[in-house]
Amino acid sequence: MRLRMVLGMIGILLVFVGASMLLPILVSLYYREIDGIAFIVSMGFTIICGQLLRKFATEKEGIRHREGFAIVTLGWLIIPIFGALPLMLAGTFDSFVNAFFESVSGFTTTGATVIMSLESLSHTILFWRSLMHWLGGMGIIVMSIVILPELAGSMQLFKAEVPGPVHDRLKPRIRETAKTIWVIYIILTCLQTIILYFNDIPLFDAVIHSFGTISTGGFSSRTLSVRAYDSVVIDAIMSFFMFLGGINLTLHYQCLKGNIKSLFKDKEFRFYALIVASSIILITINLRFQVYNSFTEALRYASFQVTSIISTAGFATVDYDIWPPFSRGILLILMFIGGCAGSTAGGIKVIRIYALMKKGFQELHKLIHPRAVTSLKIGNRAVSDEVSTSILGFFFLYIIVFVISTVTLTSFGIDLVSSISAVAATLGNIGPGLGLIGPLNTYVPLPITGKLLLSFCMILGRLEIYTVLVFLLSGFWRK
Amino acid sequence: MRLRMVLGMIGILLVFVGASMLLPILVSLYYREIDGIAFIVSMGFTIICGQLLRKFATEKEGIRHREGFAIVTLGWLIIPIFGALPLMLAGTFDSFVNAFFESVSGFTTTGATVIMSLESLSHTILFWRSLMHWLGGMGIIVMSIVILPELAGSMQLFKAEVPGPVHDRLKPRIRETAKTIWVIYIILTCLQTIILYFNDIPLFDAVIHSFGTISTGGFSSRTLSVRAYDSVVIDAIMSFFMFLGGINLTLHYQCLKGNIKSLFKDKEFRFYALIVASSIILITINLRFQVYNSFTEALRYASFQVTSIISTAGFATVDYDIWPPFSRGILLILMFIGGCAGSTAGGIKVIRIYALMKKGFQELHKLIHPRAVTSLKIGNRAVSDEVSTSILGFFFLYIIVFVISTVTLTSFGIDLVSSISAVAATLGNIGPGLGLIGPLNTYVPLPITGKLLLSFCMILGRLEIYTVLVFLLSGFWRK
Repeated sequence: MRLRMVLGMIGILLVFVGASMLLPILVSLYYREIDGIAFIVSMGFTIICGQLLRKFATEKEGIRHREGFAIVTLGWLIIPIFGALPLMLAGTFDSFVNAFFESVSGFTTTGATVIMSLESLSHTILFWRSLMHWLGGMGIIVMSIVILPELAGSMQLFKAEVPGPVHDRLKPRIRETAKTIWVIYIILTCLQTIILYFNDIPLFDAVIHSFGTISTGGFSSRTLSVRAYDSVVIDAIMSFFMFLGGINLTLHYQCLKGNIKSLFKDKEFRFYALIVASSIILITINLRFQVYNSFTEALRYASFQVTSIISTAGFATVDYDIWPPFSRGILLILMFIGGCAGSTAGGIKVIRIYALMKKGFQELHKLIHPRAVTSLKIGNRAVSDEVSTSILGFFFLYIIVFVISTVTLTSFGIDLVSSISAVAATLGNIGPGLGLIGPLNTYVPLPITGKLLLSFCMILGRLEIYTVLVFLLSGFWRK
Repeated sequence: MRLRMVLGMIGILLVFVGASMLLPILVSLYYREIDGIAFIVSMGFTIICGQLLRKFATEKEGIRHREGFAIVTLGWLIIPIFGALPLMLAGTFDSFVNAFFESVSGFTTTGATVIMSLESLSHTILFWRSLMHWLGGMGIIVMSIVILPELAGSMQLFKAEVPGPVHDRLKPRIRETAKTIWVIYIILTCLQTIILYFNDIPLFDAVIHSFGTISTGGFSSRTLSVRAYDSVVIDAIMSFFMFLGGINLTLHYQCLKGNIKSLFKDKEFRFYALIVASSIILITINLRFQVYNSFTEALRYASFQVTSIISTAGFATVDYDIWPPFSRGILLILMFIGGCAGSTAGGIKVIRIYALMKKGFQELHKLIHPRAVTSLKIGNRAVSDEVSTSILGFFFLYIIVFVISTVTLTSFGIDLVSSISAVAATLGNIGPGLGLIGPLNTYVPLPITGKLLLSFCMILGRLEIYTVLVFLLSGFWRK
């Protein structure tokens, strides 16, 4: 591997992130906030570091896919360090671990926070938090188009989602695809901002919440999150866009081109919609009988929370931690499922769950009819044995990482439900969990090592585990 | 499928179970207890029902393996009904669901109880509960030799554990194997009984606890379980035999033949020992610093509880539910792992976890070296792709069953940790769990539907899920 080239690429990314700090600077000028200075310093430092690294770049012709793994893993580790810089300089945190946690949570579009009161922050800082989400979302789009399809096995499922073949080197075609999807991403963000704005949400808040929704991040500008507005209309708008946020962005593209049919033909979307609908129904019934007196109220909170968790945005309109165990149990499962592949959502992903279900039925069928020849199909595409094994392997890996991280977290004395949900919520890039880190709470009470562990979980989950493990285990550095 | 033949075989099993009721009758005579009458009636009824069913048996020459699935599934469903009969007649329970739950828990060697005070029971009833364990264990041995290797895929791993080939019809060779392993089973039971007896445990209690240990069941004659004796020596003896109970019985056979080497060559045993040792060390350290003042005390309780949970016996010497989350977390994981294949232990089984781990590393290796040709090996045996996929499939299925059952249980208003551990403890055939159903508690507080659900989990776990699902989903009854 050409390490110089990898560092060079990260340099380019840093310059980009540094340049993006111009936006919070503009915000600080508009609101006349002093925090702008922290961003000017950070911007300068980030761009200089980026430029220095760029000097390393020896070749510009193309990136081999193994180098892609390194860029992505190191990128999602190094960029948050620079993202944390203005948070430290502005005095938002007094511990760098907290600033790093918040920044990782931003760039991985998780939305877990270690800030107790958001109202005490300047607009500049709030904007930067949400911008990290939004930039992270852009990064995920590129990753899911360029890097993931290169991973043998499991990820090949995603391959066909993207038009055009993917070869060993970055092709102009891929660049085009990325650009198209970025445009969709931007259109959705603007659309949501406008709709929120025209429903009496201040423009600043509208931008913040749109950034958090489309990137499926979940940082809010209010400590109470979306429940600060306490409006059925806003809840409905947010739920709708969170639902959209969990859908494959190429499907949005198809729909915008007028090809609405493709949406309903897509097996993953149909399964996603099915899970959302059935979860809403189950939780609504449960809430209606055990918590709320009105059916509408139950439906409202259930819809919001289900779309928020499955899309892995993680906004909250209610303290769902006091809901009955059944509703909380379903939410916990949704944390594992996550959104569709090709979206900015985290989790195991709907397509994998769907493929695993089909595979399960196929195996049973095989047991009953040992001589029958069957092949796994999703829609019209045949799924090779290698791919399905790889998906099973991913599932196993996800559970193993989850179990090990949870036990490690309990070793810090954190109770079981909180530990389970903290790991599920960070590995799945959701944000809030249950118990100690429920929707009314933050990740503040966790010890430093716990925060570092969960930061690692966020990155691991974001990069589909494999990417990080391949990077860590391969002979990358030795060669 | 020849339904008559299946029912005929179940008839034979019923006659056998009916005949075994002679033992509690003898116990009742010895202790001059009135409960013997309940057993005389039940014995007569069971044998008559069995004989009537036996009339159905048309062929005697052999059982096809699909019929094996039906016999095993129906057997573990019907036999507990007859096992519950004397419990009802003797007035131990006033609800049949409770009696059925206790009986299923007995025959599946789970050890989950719905009896609040064991001291209020007669010796006859106590003996019958433990005898159900012991008979269940015998059934499991036959199943793991005859039925499981016939399951395509995953179970083929177990196949080679058993000497000799397994064909489409029951071969005399298999019968011989089963008999040999039964002898080991009986020897281990006698050995433990004698050792316990010579360490000041009354003979009756010694028998009860040996039945519960070697069958990895866990029913005790004392409400306080093994902590009623509060003796370090007894704890050590029990821990040792529980550890043995989790080992493949063919390995015991090899050792008895003097081939001790085979034990240490066996990959599954080594991995099992590794898990046990590392869990004991971790929990001991955790307990030493957070619960107990002495290292010996921490080691004593940790060793007992780890061997008890991983072997899926489920005895208790301490209320581990008040242990710190880390220790409880590890115990929860052990509930999923379970003992070795070819033992009477439940859970996912060590060999599967081992194979999955190896497969996981292999997949990562493949990602790093895409052109490398690798094959999965366990010891000297190559594991085919079909088998490893099937193991992954089993893992997925186990988790899915776990998740669905847990959510269903929460829908009855039971808290998350209790629901999670109740399903883990019944699906893994352990017995006690955490929280509401912790080691100091029973399954009494659960609603009837909850008990039925968990009874089903016990059977599902006991029969390695596949067996039941194949039976339920196949066209068995239609043909």
